[in-house]
Amino acid sequence: MISLRLIFLAFIISFSAIAQKDYKLWLQYDKTTNAALASEYKNQLQGIVSLGNSETSKISLKELETGLFNMLENKPEVFPEIKGENKIIVGSKSSLTSEIQKAVGSDFDKINEEGFIIKSISLKNKKHILITAKNDIGVLYGVYNFLRLLQTNKSIQNLNIIEAPKTNIRILNHWDNLDRTVERGYAGFSLWNWQKLPDFIDQRYIDYARANASVGINGTVLTNVNANALILTPQYLEKVEALANVFRPYGIKVYLTARFSAPIEIGGLKTADPKDVDVANWWKNKAAEIYKRIPDFGGFLVKANSEGQPGPQNYGRDHVDGANMLADAVAPFGGVIMWRAFVYSEHDVNDRAKQAYAEFQPYDGKFKDNVIVQVKNGAIDFQPREPFHPLFGAMPKTPLMMEFQITQEYLGFSTHLVYLPKLYQEVLESDTYQKGKGSLVAKVVDGTLDQHKLTGIAGVSNIGNDLNWTGHPFAQANWYGFGRLAWDPYLDSETIADEWLRCTFSNNENFIKPIKEMMMQSREAVVNYMTPLGLHHIMDTGHHYGPGPWVSNLSRPEWNPVYYHKADKNGIGFDRSKTGTNATAQYASEVEKIFDNPATCPEKDLLWFHHVSWDYKLKNGQTLWNGMALKYQEGVDQVKEMQNIWNRTKPYVDAERFKEVEMLLNIQYKESKWWRDACLLYFQQFSGKELPKGVEKPNETLEYFKSLKFPFAPGN
Amino acid sequence: MISLRLIFLAFIISFSAIAQKDYKLWLQYDKTTNAALASEYKNQLQGIVSLGNSETSKISLKELETGLFNMLENKPEVFPEIKGENKIIVGSKSSLTSEIQKAVGSDFDKINEEGFIIKSISLKNKKHILITAKNDIGVLYGVYNFLRLLQTNKSIQNLNIIEAPKTNIRILNHWDNLDRTVERGYAGFSLWNWQKLPDFIDQRYIDYARANASVGINGTVLTNVNANALILTPQYLEKVEALANVFRPYGIKVYLTARFSAPIEIGGLKTADPKDVDVANWWKNKAAEIYKRIPDFGGFLVKANSEGQPGPQNYGRDHVDGANMLADAVAPFGGVIMWRAFVYSEHDVNDRAKQAYAEFQPYDGKFKDNVIVQVKNGAIDFQPREPFHPLFGAMPKTPLMMEFQITQEYLGFSTHLVYLPKLYQEVLESDTYQKGKGSLVAKVVDGTLDQHKLTGIAGVSNIGNDLNWTGHPFAQANWYGFGRLAWDPYLDSETIADEWLRCTFSNNENFIKPIKEMMMQSREAVVNYMTPLGLHHIMDTGHHYGPGPWVSNLSRPEWNPVYYHKADKNGIGFDRSKTGTNATAQYASEVEKIFDNPATCPEKDLLWFHHVSWDYKLKNGQTLWNGMALKYQEGVDQVKEMQNIWNRTKPYVDAERFKEVEMLLNIQYKESKWWRDACLLYFQQFSGKELPKGVEKPNETLEYFKSLKFPFAPGN
Repeated sequence: MISLRLIFLAFIISFSAIAQKDYKLWLQYDKTTNAALASEYKNQLQGIVSLGNSETSKISLKELETGLFNMLENKPEVFPEIKGENKIIVGSKSSLTSEIQKAVGSDFDKINEEGFIIKSISLKNKKHILITAKNDIGVLYGVYNFLRLLQTNKSIQNLNIIEAPKTNIRILNHWDNLDRTVERGYAGFSLWNWQKLPDFIDQRYIDYARANASVGINGTVLTNVNANALILTPQYLEKVEALANVFRPYGIKVYLTARFSAPIEIGGLKTADPKDVDVANWWKNKAAEIYKRIPDFGGFLVKANSEGQPGPQNYGRDHVDGANMLADAVAPFGGVIMWRAFVYSEHDVNDRAKQAYAEFQPYDGKFKDNVIVQVKNGAIDFQPREPFHPLFGAMPKTPLMMEFQITQEYLGFSTHLVYLPKLYQEVLESDTYQKGKGSLVAKVVDGTLDQHKLTGIAGVSNIGNDLNWTGHPFAQANWYGFGRLAWDPYLDSETIADEWLRCTFSNNENFIKPIKEMMMQSREAVVNYMTPLGLHHIMDTGHHYGPGPWVSNLSRPEWNPVYYHKADKNGIGFDRSKTGTNATAQYASEVEKIFDNPATCPEKDLLWFHHVSWDYKLKNGQTLWNGMALKYQEGVDQVKEMQNIWNRTKPYVDAERFKEVEMLLNIQYKESKWWRDACLLYFQQFSGKELPKGVEKPNETLEYFKSLKFPFAPGN
Repeated sequence: MISLRLIFLAFIISFSAIAQKDYKLWLQYDKTTNAALASEYKNQLQGIVSLGNSETSKISLKELETGLFNMLENKPEVFPEIKGENKIIVGSKSSLTSEIQKAVGSDFDKINEEGFIIKSISLKNKKHILITAKNDIGVLYGVYNFLRLLQTNKSIQNLNIIEAPKTNIRILNHWDNLDRTVERGYAGFSLWNWQKLPDFIDQRYIDYARANASVGINGTVLTNVNANALILTPQYLEKVEALANVFRPYGIKVYLTARFSAPIEIGGLKTADPKDVDVANWWKNKAAEIYKRIPDFGGFLVKANSEGQPGPQNYGRDHVDGANMLADAVAPFGGVIMWRAFVYSEHDVNDRAKQAYAEFQPYDGKFKDNVIVQVKNGAIDFQPREPFHPLFGAMPKTPLMMEFQITQEYLGFSTHLVYLPKLYQEVLESDTYQKGKGSLVAKVVDGTLDQHKLTGIAGVSNIGNDLNWTGHPFAQANWYGFGRLAWDPYLDSETIADEWLRCTFSNNENFIKPIKEMMMQSREAVVNYMTPLGLHHIMDTGHHYGPGPWVSNLSRPEWNPVYYHKADKNGIGFDRSKTGTNATAQYASEVEKIFDNPATCPEKDLLWFHHVSWDYKLKNGQTLWNGMALKYQEGVDQVKEMQNIWNRTKPYVDAERFKEVEMLLNIQYKESKWWRDACLLYFQQFSGKELPKGVEKPNETLEYFKSLKFPFAPGN
């Protein structure tokens, strides 16, 4: 009988899970199970006083009602004005009575247009909690922040939270094509159902906006950087407008990618030369047309003269010419141009890692005010680990924004659990030394290093139409964490993991503690089993799924993994020191010195900067070969340990998500062994050495691994 | 205050709706709100006695528990044996005590291997309800049927239901590609996430199986008829096996499409000639390989020598050679070959409508026993209306199965509300007269006309990874209704609509009555605004989205809409009578006579069979031109009326689905006008006549309509 009961309960739980938990992201608003806390919350939240009337205000109110209803299980009463005590008062500055404004004092001076204040105040000797801001969107951010206090079981007594985002543009880049395929998408297909737009508003658009607003994301680029000009035609702009209308009250601006050759493709012009008057006018008119539909349109993201995309260089012009021409088009409407520095050319025999710096650094100070240059976190391409991009700090007269990848193109797609905020943090807290010690990448990004007002962080989205949005339940944490770091690039990734786990799963410490640890380790695990010690870009080509260090037959040298690891019988690694390509010289001298010398170069970046012999002695005394092999093994062991940890948390997780993660970790474990075995067998050809003790022997041959083909791997 | 409350409630409802209602299909198991009924149910259902132990038995039990728990809001107790009274006893024949078997009497003789019995019985003077069957899968079908009684608020007193499916193969055809695009798919992308299979079992696979089992669907062809041979490689078969394992306990067999040239593409042979011994052996070995993994593998569906697909004719062989060779490969394992009769050739100058009959009818009696020929409902291709296919009844010595299309390739994609069981019923109850009056298509399909044991109905799936499965909430009814008619081809489509509405939305008569009427009218509406009076295949080409009667530039004549309507200044329509292509001669003489004469030909099929003048007098006295124009207008008016009806049901539907359908009906209304205006403007060029009174004037020009392009229309 007992077993039947258990089956039954599991089923009920699992049904509700599929329908709700996976979809609800970090906005579960689970019931507060700590009785003392629940009672504290109820005492202090005896109703809502809602002072605004805008669409955004209505959303703030609904969210508060929904959150409190679900967490405290009673409907909060809503009042149009303050009565009694222990109310939560919600409204922007202009809606507040002078008495309340007085209670806030000078706090408004401490926040920007998107900041908020959450404050315990006393009015006529009655205690209340106030959520306010200069604007309604700030109030909404405050509401989400306040709800998060409850979600994470924090006290709400004596509140005095004054917060404002440290960057202006906190934006998702969707590499979504018009046919709904998603380049590097591993969570199904594009959310944007262009066929049914503009007349059908999918509830997911609303829930997407809600999730983004809850972490402070305020922009979205709807389309792939490998752009299609059709998005700029009236047929599609009507659809974009419909999405912009949905997103607006959530504080989210819509941006598009601009295909540089659009004036030819949809404009009927013979050229897209940025110096051509007709071309410039075409873009001006196009901008006017867009802004007529979408007055708060954000602007354009542009990938030009990179990987075959058209650009100003097709006409003998340069990036500055291209960017500034577009900047002029959107400037009258307050738009910005996000111009990507991710460029490399098959005609440039230089180390690919050097090309973006070489091409862009000389342009410093030449871009118009409303241009921001978008730089990937590293100089290659979203690897499990890269040293920070040398452009950070190197263009003091130019606003630079960060481009992180949230989707796991090179990190196991959506089957590997990798907590990316750890990676983001590592980059953001890197010291560029460009203005001496403490010139952190974060300070470049938030504009404080060089006093820039236009700032931003972009994340290449991992969102698709999978029921759980991101393919892997834990990949939701990467979306969440990206948003939180875009808001405040100085946040600690562990704190973010803690928040996310509590909001998404449970406040039970027996769950939180081990799982947080598992998340924090997960990034190092993927580095270990894929690309330890500074190895990079040895994934199979095209789809980037699984190992392919042997690939050497692609037309462009820098598309081949052998270009990056340069393994031979003498050793392995890419010499970017002054004995090699001298890429290290692109860093500030303090950093250059460290990277340039194998003895001082951090071992995690060793093979990124140096070609060293198989017998090179690592700091722990091991030879490079042995150390590398043991790192691969360590990665596998870490995944095994992640499985162990997860299995122990079964009592604390709903059956559905438990099972999902369990299955995914099984895949990750299998694939970590695939990585280890394929890479070690391949590199062993050059090292000619045995695997050290402690490294498991491969069960398959190198030929087997080389024979694996994945013609329909997603995202390609 | 009231308005705030309403907003709040709407939000709560809408949140739960998106998360649950849309996804839960017809298995909502809403609370029984009729108090008298609820009390009757509770009295008679005081616990479950579950007698089986198989996976399927466990599913039966879970489903009963979930259904009763949700509808009656208390947990039913589960007993391993009978105690007390008013229990629901669930188990297959072999699990029943002799006393219970006696109570069932000879009812087991009335059902087949998949049938079931639901019976009020008395044991030791205690009343119980028994759900039994010869096999566990029959029990599961019985459980779903029983739950449906509660869902539709039927009495459960004195039950004596003895039911068995009338066809063997009740199967979905997924035109799903390995890259997850779906040919003619309008509900997102393929459910099958090949990348994550076999190790990740998406909960949707389970819920898909559950939904299918609940309506008696017992087979699924996972892959597109335009097949890719890779599905037959070990890499993919491992994934297919994982799906088969999920579906098996739900009584669902997995089938695959066989690319005829697979022996070349993945087998390394130089030919795919069905008379070649190596080829035949390759298929035999391949079948053995598949059956080793999947002992109950259903067999292959084959599209050969049609629309460019490879087939036996490439080697000078014929369909019989091809089908029988494959039949030999699967016969030892009990597999079947479903060989499609949908063929037409660009080298055949014959009327396309005649080609399938011309090619296949002479093969009657030549196929092996385990071959069934799959015939589309009409001779062209899933049009809003077609006369029944002349092959039905014309191959008495050959099992023929029906191929319906559930996805709305030619019927407005997933934005038009069209209730298709009305169309299916029209076809199934058509009289072929092949064995005299009463030789219904349904009797061909269920095998009773010519005493065939191998029978089946296939439906081209409308299922995708949209949250609501089918893109349009009402398209769920087409999946449901297909399953019900596959089980029993004599069911009335109105009864099915009634069932579906009650299970999916509400038992409230104020909702049921008008919405059922709306559904029943919806099919005639789409015929009216797209292709009235027998017009067909005048959709825009390729994607088939919207009108394109003007298209005349495609390489194959029969791909052009002008081929089908043949409008000129003398009139319109395709003369298939004896003065024309004589396609009518393919029908039994009684039918031929009716179709051949415009005076006796049903007006709904007039232009299918006849080219008539613009002044031709219709039965209502109108000229053809005026009558046609008024039909187009009538279609538009019907959609308007559907909108009115829907809007009145707001109080009875959750906010989320109400809004969804409201938005979709808006699109349908817009597009019905597009159809009317574009077609009438185009045909007016030939008729040279004014639009009759009562037909709205177009707001756009013909040139405008011709200029519309949809490069990313889905499903193409």
